[in-house]
Amino acid sequence: MRALFIGFGNVGRKVAEILFLERDRYPAISLNDFSITGIFTKTKGALADMDGVNIPEALDDLREEGKFRYTNPRRTDQDIRDAILSSDYDILVELSPLSIESRGEPAVSYIRDALNSGKHVVSANKGPVAFAYRELKEIARKNNRFFLHEAAVMDGAPIFNLAERTLKGCKITGLSGILNSTTNFILTRMEQGETFHSALMTAQKEGFAEADPSHDIEGWDSAAKTAALANVLMEAEITPFDVPREGISDVTTEMVREVIQRGKKLKLVCRARYEGDGIIARVCLEEVASGDPFSTVHGTGSCLRIETDLMSPLIIIQHSPNLYDTAFGVIEDLETICRNG
Amino acid sequence: MRALFIGFGNVGRKVAEILFLERDRYPAISLNDFSITGIFTKTKGALADMDGVNIPEALDDLREEGKFRYTNPRRTDQDIRDAILSSDYDILVELSPLSIESRGEPAVSYIRDALNSGKHVVSANKGPVAFAYRELKEIARKNNRFFLHEAAVMDGAPIFNLAERTLKGCKITGLSGILNSTTNFILTRMEQGETFHSALMTAQKEGFAEADPSHDIEGWDSAAKTAALANVLMEAEITPFDVPREGISDVTTEMVREVIQRGKKLKLVCRARYEGDGIIARVCLEEVASGDPFSTVHGTGSCLRIETDLMSPLIIIQHSPNLYDTAFGVIEDLETICRNG
Repeated sequence: MRALFIGFGNVGRKVAEILFLERDRYPAISLNDFSITGIFTKTKGALADMDGVNIPEALDDLREEGKFRYTNPRRTDQDIRDAILSSDYDILVELSPLSIESRGEPAVSYIRDALNSGKHVVSANKGPVAFAYRELKEIARKNNRFFLHEAAVMDGAPIFNLAERTLKGCKITGLSGILNSTTNFILTRMEQGETFHSALMTAQKEGFAEADPSHDIEGWDSAAKTAALANVLMEAEITPFDVPREGISDVTTEMVREVIQRGKKLKLVCRARYEGDGIIARVCLEEVASGDPFSTVHGTGSCLRIETDLMSPLIIIQHSPNLYDTAFGVIEDLETICRNG
Repeated sequence: MRALFIGFGNVGRKVAEILFLERDRYPAISLNDFSITGIFTKTKGALADMDGVNIPEALDDLREEGKFRYTNPRRTDQDIRDAILSSDYDILVELSPLSIESRGEPAVSYIRDALNSGKHVVSANKGPVAFAYRELKEIARKNNRFFLHEAAVMDGAPIFNLAERTLKGCKITGLSGILNSTTNFILTRMEQGETFHSALMTAQKEGFAEADPSHDIEGWDSAAKTAALANVLMEAEITPFDVPREGISDVTTEMVREVIQRGKKLKLVCRARYEGDGIIARVCLEEVASGDPFSTVHGTGSCLRIETDLMSPLIIIQHSPNLYDTAFGVIEDLETICRNG
């Protein structure tokens, strides 16, 4: 299988490192069957090589220069769209960041083009699933190709795979969760007395909050994940714009501590449920009681509660994930395709 | 697919009710493709009918008489072992209770005979998985048949399926959990000031503690589940006898409340981890801190923490399961076989 990478930030590089430099970690994908034939980025340049890009060299370039060296003979000026449509590969690995303003574009178009060209798609970007899941899934189905996106929500925790592979007989009737690590990290620090701005700066310093953290802080990331989950798991057809949001920028340390004094914790909670013929979804600041498993999700942890028509609610908690977790979500999807594609 | 049921207690009857009387609940198994051609019990008699046992009638018999009526024309005196070996069916559904004293027998032999005769097996009994998993799995593999047991631990919560279907690329390196509902229910009631004996009586009245609750109280059920999980998920070859146990019969209300005053909760925790070349497993009373997700598992709830070599720990919590949850574990396994068998 030959993969074309769009985006090569932290997650893309970690995926490449695991597959090419840390071979023992994931032997299920053999380099006899797998190569990366193109890496296209917005700001770091692009590489292409039908025999497989030299990954150690590419990673060196980025570490030392912050971009692919001009002298790298595999550098290409080919347009991303053109590469997706006309180059020879099997799997598009779409790792660009969430875009809210442009409704998931250009990732949605990249994925549409790849699927229409008969390629499989793996995406860690929640945008396409949040804005265009139904359409993209239908194209994938028609072309008998995979469109997988395990890492889009809760990193590598097997949420989408869990629902598809182990809850087949159930109908998922409701979802709730704490899904944004930056806001949860900030709220946890504020419980300990820190101010919002100081906690935000720590999150940025530790590398998981973006330089522009507004998507997280204003609840857009949570809204996109809520829409993504509702679309995939509850057959909704909503976008993040259909999810009323609350952010945490107006939360003060005093408010957080007052809630603690009442024996509760302030959490940014995502919810989706059926109401009438439709799905009602929202992202809200909620006071969570201390006996509730959600109250134990601190720092960068996340959780999801799944309600079904057949079983008691299931809660999945992910403890302090790191970059490996997200990378493994992508790699598990790649493995599914290598095995079945 | 024709199923032969061994045991027809609460779980077996609920499975039959869902499939035959509550058709809307689980349409994935069609009665055009599925019938129960035999039901063999230890104390209620046995029924057999190659065209499919009349399930509404059988359920009526049990509700009204506590056993299959002597006048029921489908009643048979055939020996269970003989039925397993010589009658015409596709799936053995093994639902007998856990036997510790006899090391999982006679269920282990029933399952061995069925697999050796080329039948699939679904079991909700943790005994065979705790005492003879490796051998039975190997016979199933050789005969290209399913040996499924999702309901053996945490009722219908997809634990075994989760590991097999969504964590393929990972190695599970450690497990811990609260897995016995009777003891967890009793400890929860004791937190509220009740005595051990009063709480136990409530558990028996509500129907989830056995008339002889010693398996639960003395930690045998937890030890069997720990062995089952370690055998299936960590490739151990241990039995419940290899799992040092603590029970809760010596726990007093004062002890429970003292732990609470320290901001913790007393829980019966199961653990398994690698040490050297082997697996160390145990069942212990532990003081769980209030910020730990395990502290939020109260009443009949259960939980499992899965540590892997590749990802941050995952915690799965099941909230107040009821008989439907266990039944759905069995039904999901039946569906897997109906679809792929």
